Amino acid sequence: MKDDFAPGDLVLEDFLPYRLSILTNRISQTLAGIYQERFGISIPEWRVMAILGRHSPLSSNLIAERGRMDKAKVSRAVSRLLDAGLITRETDPRDNRLLILKLSTRGKRIYAKIAPLALAWESDLLDGLDDEDKAAIDRILNKLSERVEVMQERDA
Amino acid sequence: MKDDFAPGDLVLEDFLPYRLSILTNRISQTLAGIYQERFGISIPEWRVMAILGRHSPLSSNLIAERGRMDKAKVSRAVSRLLDAGLITRETDPRDNRLLILKLSTRGKRIYAKIAPLALAWESDLLDGLDDEDKAAIDRILNKLSERVEVMQERDA
Repeated sequence: MKDDFAPGDLVLEDFLPYRLSILTNRISQTLAGIYQERFGISIPEWRVMAILGRHSPLSSNLIAERGRMDKAKVSRAVSRLLDAGLITRETDPRDNRLLILKLSTRGKRIYAKIAPLALAWESDLLDGLDDEDKAAIDRILNKLSERVEVMQERDA
Repeated sequence: MKDDFAPGDLVLEDFLPYRLSILTNRISQTLAGIYQERFGISIPEWRVMAILGRHSPLSSNLIAERGRMDKAKVSRAVSRLLDAGLITRETDPRDNRLLILKLSTRGKRIYAKIAPLALAWESDLLDGLDDEDKAAIDRILNKLSERVEVMQERDA
């Protein structure tokens, strides 16, 4: 790199959005080890299942909004989960233009197998932090979420 | 939710991998406001440009590895950046089976415009934290990265 910019200006390894993204992707990829091979579920598919396991029923758009996921990615994951019989789709009884999604009985059974493994994995990850850092990460993630929300609304 | 699992077991809003993913996606989406409309660059395209702005030349596979990105996503971003003339592709002089990528002159110029905006955006985001939390986030991200690396190697 030379000419018209100094690469030192943006040191990617120190840039918080990049550091968070690398860490998050690495965490998602490693966590996926507990469900990907055994259940044949991809990362976006598990995210959709986890959201539906917590908040159900939801439309595809609400899943995307809640998980801050790309709509096309949610739509692909939803198609595959429907094909695999892990979720069901029906018309919203309150608004028949809307299609709402739920975990199927089989989807609930698989979710119930993955959930405790996911929690054990998280607890293993958090073993890398002492109590002070565990409190700090909780506080900091909340502060950054609030801050980015303010910035998003201001820039909109 | 009922029957064969208790939804309370996995409280998604408290689950660190999910919280990190939501925050990271929100940060990426909001940061994209500084380059998406003005330069017509998508989030994965900017990530590829930022990696090449820091480490260049690289093959597509090395970009994916470095950014912990999905290979198919990198490959789509690379195609669009080539079409837009923002990166160039050539044979690696050390191994003619490898194709290596660099920012083009135009790509460097756009990178040089976005980089200071990205740094100002980050500094605005960090204004939400006091000095103690700024030090803590740095320490905690390093500890979690080391921990997930250990877990990944152990599980591999």
